[in-house]
Amino acid sequence: MISEKMKGLVQGSSVIRAMFEEGKKLASIYGEDHVYDFSLGNPNVPAPEQVNQAVKGIVEEEQSVMVHGYMSNSGYEDVRTAIADSLNRRFDTRFQRDNIVMTVGAAGGLNVILKSLLNPGDEVIVFAPFFGEYRAYVENYDGKLLVVPADTKDFQLNLKAFESMITSATKAVIINNPNNPTGVVYSEHTIRNLAEILNRKQNEYGTEIFLISDEPYRELVYDGAEAVYLTKYHDNTIVAYSYSKSLSLPGERIGYLVIPDEAADSQEIQSAANVATRILGFVNAPSLMQRVIGRCVKAGVTTDITPYDRNRKLLYENLKRMGFECVRPEGAFYLFVKTPTEDEMEFVNAAKKYNVLLVPGSAFHCPGYVRISYCVSENTIRNSLPEFEKLAEEFIKK
Amino acid sequence: MISEKMKGLVQGSSVIRAMFEEGKKLASIYGEDHVYDFSLGNPNVPAPEQVNQAVKGIVEEEQSVMVHGYMSNSGYEDVRTAIADSLNRRFDTRFQRDNIVMTVGAAGGLNVILKSLLNPGDEVIVFAPFFGEYRAYVENYDGKLLVVPADTKDFQLNLKAFESMITSATKAVIINNPNNPTGVVYSEHTIRNLAEILNRKQNEYGTEIFLISDEPYRELVYDGAEAVYLTKYHDNTIVAYSYSKSLSLPGERIGYLVIPDEAADSQEIQSAANVATRILGFVNAPSLMQRVIGRCVKAGVTTDITPYDRNRKLLYENLKRMGFECVRPEGAFYLFVKTPTEDEMEFVNAAKKYNVLLVPGSAFHCPGYVRISYCVSENTIRNSLPEFEKLAEEFIKK
Repeated sequence: MISEKMKGLVQGSSVIRAMFEEGKKLASIYGEDHVYDFSLGNPNVPAPEQVNQAVKGIVEEEQSVMVHGYMSNSGYEDVRTAIADSLNRRFDTRFQRDNIVMTVGAAGGLNVILKSLLNPGDEVIVFAPFFGEYRAYVENYDGKLLVVPADTKDFQLNLKAFESMITSATKAVIINNPNNPTGVVYSEHTIRNLAEILNRKQNEYGTEIFLISDEPYRELVYDGAEAVYLTKYHDNTIVAYSYSKSLSLPGERIGYLVIPDEAADSQEIQSAANVATRILGFVNAPSLMQRVIGRCVKAGVTTDITPYDRNRKLLYENLKRMGFECVRPEGAFYLFVKTPTEDEMEFVNAAKKYNVLLVPGSAFHCPGYVRISYCVSENTIRNSLPEFEKLAEEFIKK
Repeated sequence: MISEKMKGLVQGSSVIRAMFEEGKKLASIYGEDHVYDFSLGNPNVPAPEQVNQAVKGIVEEEQSVMVHGYMSNSGYEDVRTAIADSLNRRFDTRFQRDNIVMTVGAAGGLNVILKSLLNPGDEVIVFAPFFGEYRAYVENYDGKLLVVPADTKDFQLNLKAFESMITSATKAVIINNPNNPTGVVYSEHTIRNLAEILNRKQNEYGTEIFLISDEPYRELVYDGAEAVYLTKYHDNTIVAYSYSKSLSLPGERIGYLVIPDEAADSQEIQSAANVATRILGFVNAPSLMQRVIGRCVKAGVTTDITPYDRNRKLLYENLKRMGFECVRPEGAFYLFVKTPTEDEMEFVNAAKKYNVLLVPGSAFHCPGYVRISYCVSENTIRNSLPEFEKLAEEFIKK
């Protein structure tokens, strides 16, 4: 009874989500302490205390009909102004309220902007490894996804291959910075080169190519790394942001799009995003959470990322010591580890025997790797180390 | 730069939303007390006090990582069980957790189920007058919307015309009960006849025809009226519910789908709805609000609808006294009034002169009428009566 499109999607469903469900099952059998679930990017650091204080303050102090009611589809004006101001302070940009559209997380924002921009057959380019759902988001609007092969040397962008794939049908490019699944932060050098190629190809074809930057991990950077703000490098940039990771609110579905004035037909795109928010059934980003974000952004609330940083070092250094190969991550909360055997599923299944849950790299269009989400307790990591040792014995030191 | 599909949608954007924006503008000029904005279904009755108590209780008592975190895409298991139990108690049904998928409001739920079911070209039938966004929802998935003309006698369903429009390509029928914009509740007699036709046509064509029931107004009924529970009349029924109106939480985007075991391929549809929730970018219904609903449903919390009932009688009786024609509404918070002139826009514009904002019937595919949302303060209604008198003078008693 379900649609043909959905049949394939249900069968191929999310490997990550399947692991998450598997993890819950194993935890119910072996106990949570004996399952090492590295499958999902579900932050284990609680939301900052100010979030719950804001929640309570709002329901006590603000008018209920306003807090829980409809507002413009793009979101509360004061919240959008607060976000624009905060971006301007931090990144020396010049956004105003109308450049911001509140969204149901970054996933909602990506769907809204793709619905707004894509005609059937339009090409959208992504760089492997990438968050697998991008394919579904693009195909929701009958766009055609093209994948640039990974540059496995340092997991920056493979720009040479990218340039050769741009055609007159290229409508958008999606990048994810800091990157899921590699944890790599794209250097300013990489971004400058990317922008230069986009500009050159726009001129060559007389088209506009939108750079869509998916940035839920913007604030999760370590060792002084910095993700540059892309609207400053390419005019046709749309930013999709989410508070899922930066304020540990993934279940709340709260984020925003930035549609800068510099983008071609920016006002038309802003109107389209407003309408798309409505007709895709979001209607608006959840209202109480919008108000919470308004307060937190004004107060400059951030999550303490030191637990992630500690986990990162602990796991990275130990895995390297055991002989695993992995690019050193500077952002997000993922390690992308080369599997010591070519058949990644052999390794994933072996790990599962030790109750270690990993996501195969092919879920990110980059087989031969596994993603480890280290947004778990330090204890989980410490207790998993002997299991990783066993895997190293089995696969590396054999 | 925006897509061809969106161009039409932006131009034709929502008349209702345009009125809402207009109302905010007029209010800023004339003051809120002097603008009679009957345009939007934004409840003026605040959410029951227990909602905000639940919000505070949850952030104080429950684990933050769980409250704001990811859960299964279909929603928290305990919340879905609580909803199934509540439905079973009230409507003598036999739902379980797996029959419930938590959604971003009913609009989110309708998109999820249409994405799950529709192949391009599949036909979806709606009955005029209907909530105009249904067209966009159906066309999002390349379905074809067919509109059964209104039965303006009593605004029950025009079943004779309906039957003649069913073909082998009919995949679904959407009804909205109690109805927006008429406030009519479909009688059990109507529903029985509808189910009987669906059954007969399914047999004739060897197809399954899904009855999608959009029910945000289920609890807003007056004079002892009752909206029967449709899964008991037609096996292939999907219910889209929202707490927007029944708990005055429209901005929070919280609702659910019911996919009963009786529906054809029900498990497959449940899986597809789970995946559609994810890939459309909802990911899951907002987490804190899911938990709030869990507590409120268990406690049997309801909104006090007496203010709506008072408004309904006040406005209905006065408009009838002035000579306006209108079907007596038994549900929701709308009156659907026949315009005393054939050109409804002439009437809508005349009303605007008196700062009375009405939505033209053509927004609901039923020209010659206006919708009046009476989910406003009693004072707004009282103060608007002299303005309606002027309209009656101008159009009826001239």
